Formats: sequence, C-alpha cells, structure tokens
Amino acid sequence: MNEQAEAAKKSTLRMIPYGLYVLATKSGDEIGAGAINWVTQTSFAPPLVAMGVKKDSGLYDTLKKSGQFGLSFLESGQKDLAFGFFKPTTVEGQSINGQAYETHETGSPIISAAPAWVEGKVVGEFDMGDHSCVIGEVTNAGTKREAGILTLEECGVKYGG
Amino acid sequence: MNEQAEAAKKSTLRMIPYGLYVLATKSGDEIGAGAINWVTQTSFAPPLVAMGVKKDSGLYDTLKKSGQFGLSFLESGQKDLAFGFFKPTTVEGQSINGQAYETHETGSPIISAAPAWVEGKVVGEFDMGDHSCVIGEVTNAGTKREAGILTLEECGVKYGG
Repeated sequence: MNEQAEAAKKSTLRMIPYGLYVLATKSGDEIGAGAINWVTQTSFAPPLVAMGVKKDSGLYDTLKKSGQFGLSFLESGQKDLAFGFFKPTTVEGQSINGQAYETHETGSPIISAAPAWVEGKVVGEFDMGDHSCVIGEVTNAGTKREAGILTLEECGVKYGG
Repeated sequence: MNEQAEAAKKSTLRMIPYGLYVLATKSGDEIGAGAINWVTQTSFAPPLVAMGVKKDSGLYDTLKKSGQFGLSFLESGQKDLAFGFFKPTTVEGQSINGQAYETHETGSPIISAAPAWVEGKVVGEFDMGDHSCVIGEVTNAGTKREAGILTLEECGVKYGG
C-alpha cells in the first residue's frame, strides 16, 4: 500500500464502532484475562462470536489450553475497570486485577460487576497476524441488569486501523 | 441452553455495537452486494477484518468465486442507502441497487456515495452456522471525507442475538 492508502486504511478501520469486554479463561490453576474490543457475532445458529486476541499474551496461551471462554460485557462508566484489564493478569483469591469474579458452567471467570456475560467453548480460530481471530460458540449467558455498553469511544481510546 | 439463558444470550449479544457497510464483490460479469453489520478488525499486521456473511446469499456465492472484496463504510444519514442493500442485488449499468459504484485495484464495487472504503482479498473463512466468518486482508483503502459511521442503532434495527 502506498502512503495515502495506508493513511486511509488506518482512518477507515478506526470508524468501526467497538464495545469493551473482559475475556477470561481458566486452565487448571491458570487464569488468563484481558480487555478486548475486537468482537462481533458471526452466526445465529449456532450462536458464534469472533474475538481478536493478541497472540503474545498469557490470555491467548491459556485460552488455547482451556478451550473455554467467558466474555463479560462492560457498562458505560466502567472505564477504570476496563483499563485494569489492559495490565498483566494478577489473581488474588476470588478476584482478578482487583475485580471479584464468579464462575458458571464453563468455569471461565466472569467479572461480577459486569451487567451481562456470555460463555462457551472455542470452536476454531483463524490464526494469521498479530492477533488470532478466535471463534467461540456461546453455550450459556446471563444478564444482571439492562445497561448501555462501555464503548471504546467513551474511553477516548482507539484500537484499530 | 434453558429459556432464561437463551433470553440472556439474545439480549447480551445485542449489546454489541455495530456499524453498517456494503460488502460487494465481482466475479466475471457477476456482482454480489449486500449490507452487513457483523464486522470487526482482527489483526493489525497484516490488516485483517472478519465479516459475517449469510451463507444462503448470492453475495456469499460470488465472494467465494472472486476471492476479492470491497467494503464501503456508510455514513450517518445513509439509512435509505443501507436498506436498499438488504434487497437482492440488481445491477444496471454502473449502478447497483440504484447506487453508483466505482472500482479500484481489486475490481470490487465500491459505493461512490460512501465516505470511506477498504478492499482486499479473502484469505480464509470459518464456515460453521448460518453465516460464514469471512476473513479479508485489506490491501487498499480510500477516504473521501471524514464522517461518523452509520450505526445499526441509528437505523433502529437489531441484527444479532
């Protein structure tokens, strides 16, 4: 791509709107968790989601081992919570990066403060580039309250381009 | 999933924010085009996008044959344009579904009224379920003007859950 196309690629891809989520997984005693924004549904039946996950992350390693995922949907106002998950994962008792978590059917950590969540199994991935496109099948979900999602825009952050 | 989890799955997946795009492709004389919203970036290098494409659509068939794609990003206010692409593709001269189009490097139709676009090649897909998760590598892009993206929310439509 020439310089002009590179610049257009960057600004155009940054037009895609994103929410913020905590993706978490558990394999044995190992917990991986991180904030992600590259998420889209890709099928109704079965219900599939595609998630861009950084390859050189503990989260990705643990996800590969566990084959299970929990995706906590964050709520408008939970910017600080989200930013805590841009840091390396630290687990203390029943909390990850200072946030209490719970588990449901898959054993994947769900952030208790999140208004809604889905969990399920990893059914595939498209592994090319700096992030892998991990495909998860949703097998369980819960809603604690109706909420507007925390967006990347609300956080004043750009991750894309 | 029990009834409660099904309902939570639906409402939670509907929290994901989406923009609206016209995905188009050309194989020989055959043009496929349609409005899609299931789009996310999944890698910086190479720049990849994941796009959920309905399996039983002419767009999907043509995309499989061509291996190339054009993704026109729609702008706030272009709801009618978007809705025109929920209908079957009709090509008349240099227009698709009544919208003038142009081509750049890949030959994939780009809606001329769109403020920005990317195009490239299909590098893979995860084909499971009613939509396929098609992975495209962006090889070229253009911006005509800065614009806020048309969102599914602005259109008063839900597609997900």
